[in-house]
Amino acid sequence: MKILVINSGSSSIKYQLLDMATESVLVTGLVERIGEAGGVLTARTHPGTGVEKRIRRENAVPDHNAGMKLLIAQLSDRQDGVIRDAAEIEAVGHRVVHGGEYFHEPALISEEVIQAISANVPLAPLHNPANLDGIRVARELFPQVPQVAVFDTAFHQSMPPHAFLYALPYELYEQDRIRRYGFHGTSHKFVAGECARLLGRPLAACNLITIHLGNGCSMTAVENGRSVETSLGMTPLEGLIMGTRCGDIDPALHAILHRSRGLDIEEIDALLNRESGLKGVCGMNDMRDIHAARQQGNKLAQLAFDMFVHRIRKYIGSYFAVLGRVDGLVFTAGIGENDHEVREATLAGLENLGIVLDREANAGKPGAWLRISAPESRVEVLVVRTNEELEIARQTMEVLGQAPIETTGPVWSGAVS
Amino acid sequence: MKILVINSGSSSIKYQLLDMATESVLVTGLVERIGEAGGVLTARTHPGTGVEKRIRRENAVPDHNAGMKLLIAQLSDRQDGVIRDAAEIEAVGHRVVHGGEYFHEPALISEEVIQAISANVPLAPLHNPANLDGIRVARELFPQVPQVAVFDTAFHQSMPPHAFLYALPYELYEQDRIRRYGFHGTSHKFVAGECARLLGRPLAACNLITIHLGNGCSMTAVENGRSVETSLGMTPLEGLIMGTRCGDIDPALHAILHRSRGLDIEEIDALLNRESGLKGVCGMNDMRDIHAARQQGNKLAQLAFDMFVHRIRKYIGSYFAVLGRVDGLVFTAGIGENDHEVREATLAGLENLGIVLDREANAGKPGAWLRISAPESRVEVLVVRTNEELEIARQTMEVLGQAPIETTGPVWSGAVS
Repeated sequence: MKILVINSGSSSIKYQLLDMATESVLVTGLVERIGEAGGVLTARTHPGTGVEKRIRRENAVPDHNAGMKLLIAQLSDRQDGVIRDAAEIEAVGHRVVHGGEYFHEPALISEEVIQAISANVPLAPLHNPANLDGIRVARELFPQVPQVAVFDTAFHQSMPPHAFLYALPYELYEQDRIRRYGFHGTSHKFVAGECARLLGRPLAACNLITIHLGNGCSMTAVENGRSVETSLGMTPLEGLIMGTRCGDIDPALHAILHRSRGLDIEEIDALLNRESGLKGVCGMNDMRDIHAARQQGNKLAQLAFDMFVHRIRKYIGSYFAVLGRVDGLVFTAGIGENDHEVREATLAGLENLGIVLDREANAGKPGAWLRISAPESRVEVLVVRTNEELEIARQTMEVLGQAPIETTGPVWSGAVS
Repeated sequence: MKILVINSGSSSIKYQLLDMATESVLVTGLVERIGEAGGVLTARTHPGTGVEKRIRRENAVPDHNAGMKLLIAQLSDRQDGVIRDAAEIEAVGHRVVHGGEYFHEPALISEEVIQAISANVPLAPLHNPANLDGIRVARELFPQVPQVAVFDTAFHQSMPPHAFLYALPYELYEQDRIRRYGFHGTSHKFVAGECARLLGRPLAACNLITIHLGNGCSMTAVENGRSVETSLGMTPLEGLIMGTRCGDIDPALHAILHRSRGLDIEEIDALLNRESGLKGVCGMNDMRDIHAARQQGNKLAQLAFDMFVHRIRKYIGSYFAVLGRVDGLVFTAGIGENDHEVREATLAGLENLGIVLDREANAGKPGAWLRISAPESRVEVLVVRTNEELEIARQTMEVLGQAPIETTGPVWSGAVS
């Protein structure tokens, strides 16, 4: 079964075509500058294989419809394509950012589903409309093909009320649906599933802490396979320290900044989202730059690193208390997958929680996964490469009643007693 | 040595006279409605003893000077007093809310100290001026007596920068001193000291988590006797859920409430401080009312209770990760000392952290202290009655170079291996 995965933004469409018989990527690509001057499509066919080919097409892309047509043309191009005909695409899976409280799982797209996604636009005013553009165009171009919406928030809908509610007037929840939703759900679910597979036990029997450290950062407490707490909140501003986002702060700081500096709410919101986080502390928001600077003795870079790590550690402890028992801890996304220094500092001195790092393993190069806990560690610690497109394709198959392939990847014998 | 402890508010003066030879309270009292109609002094002499006497004086109290004179008259009254002459008072200890970054410990009051307290007025615009009123008046009336300022923030000045800084533009710290300060420091320090004494080891060798649950709520991670993390922040709004204060929320909610409801920053600040917390969720801010309501099946009361407990549990776990090793966990203040249901729910299922509650002991009546952990618990769990006035008096003696009495209270033999 070939599935096209679409992540439609306001001026771009990211796409992947996957062959789910082998869970392999046939094409991964991006259409950019939709509605702007200088539209461009870049793609790689059979990425990471011996026959990988890079493609670039400059082409006016006035709207999402034109963008989708361009990528279909690329996929079925006689010379550079990977399919003969668009009819080979048997399903389309769409990333949708916000499913609100309506979507606890992926949904086969219908008029009713589109209306429900539209109803959640106030919760994600930038993202949901762009996602809907992608859905609308794909339905026009593939009218016969089943299409599935996979939500960034759905995995976290299993949180209990005492975890998802803020201690605010209850009517703000009843009337305005102000609550914690969480994000990065597709990534957290994917790496939780991979972790369970590597531990050799069903996800539904696993208590895990998943740590997604990319441009945005979030952590999730997974109890018996279900999200029961997560660090991003109503919006992607809460929780961990991120590249330019502050994460947790004293909620009285808005009033303090207003009184002392005369800033209004929108200015403060922009400050917290775009001028804070690692960038706010040390002027850099790329952890690689921060490492280079702190190695040269830059004290603010060291401070930003220490703060970033300290916040993650606090959440690890917090989720230990939430879960009671923790089987595995997983690092993923850009920093989580590649930054052994962040991982090492994060896990130092947590032996009392049952976490013992294997420093040598931690310094190794991860492929799809890497085990970095020492044999005596009660908690298995893994690095897992996240793959949101594959997760979207898997969930799309599931909605269509198709069983995923039996993955017979490495399972550690005796990894868990 | 007799020490007068003063807690001067904007329209009230709380006071205690302590005999530090025995650490006993000679008088505890309150002058209220200073500058208002119907000034009143209420006091108890020799409280909690067989000769306790209740006193009430209605008297015009136009200002703090008159209030202080009234309480001095009460102390040295021929009939109801406890001293012959104000000259018996050998030192005055003043509670001061905000010491900023200037005061890491209590200070003998001088002009320079008064200026430094004044410099911190912007950090506590309601409290520090009232505290200064009390200091000014007491110096006028006791010009020969050494006076000491004891700060609510001082205990937390040992936090490292990676714990006290927010991930905001660094200039906000440099220029406006925006950072975590923490509060309730006198209480956290007192119960930490009591806990160490009860564990039979020096405070400087103890890693503790202290949980102050009163009208305001806060927790502190104490490493080798020093505060290294605390839940209240720049202001007393951050952290745990409180009676009417929200504690931690998504910092983007201000912008959301502004956009959806047209509220401005000051309205939102008032909402978060006064209409949120337990009261916001269920309409009640007294935990005893909440227990009564949830026992009658009130679902929002149950939800408020569950949220309150869940937040404390998250901080317990968080501080386990911060401390690495935890020797003791202490509950204190109104709810912490008296509410066994909150304590039981908070500690349920934390065996993996080494916490095992003795449910029967937990249901017992605490005196000055109560041990509520089971013998097999790796972490000692205590209830300790807080005593900020005694702590202020002790710190006042310390500043004056006087050794405190050798406390020979109960120490559990073998409590700690």
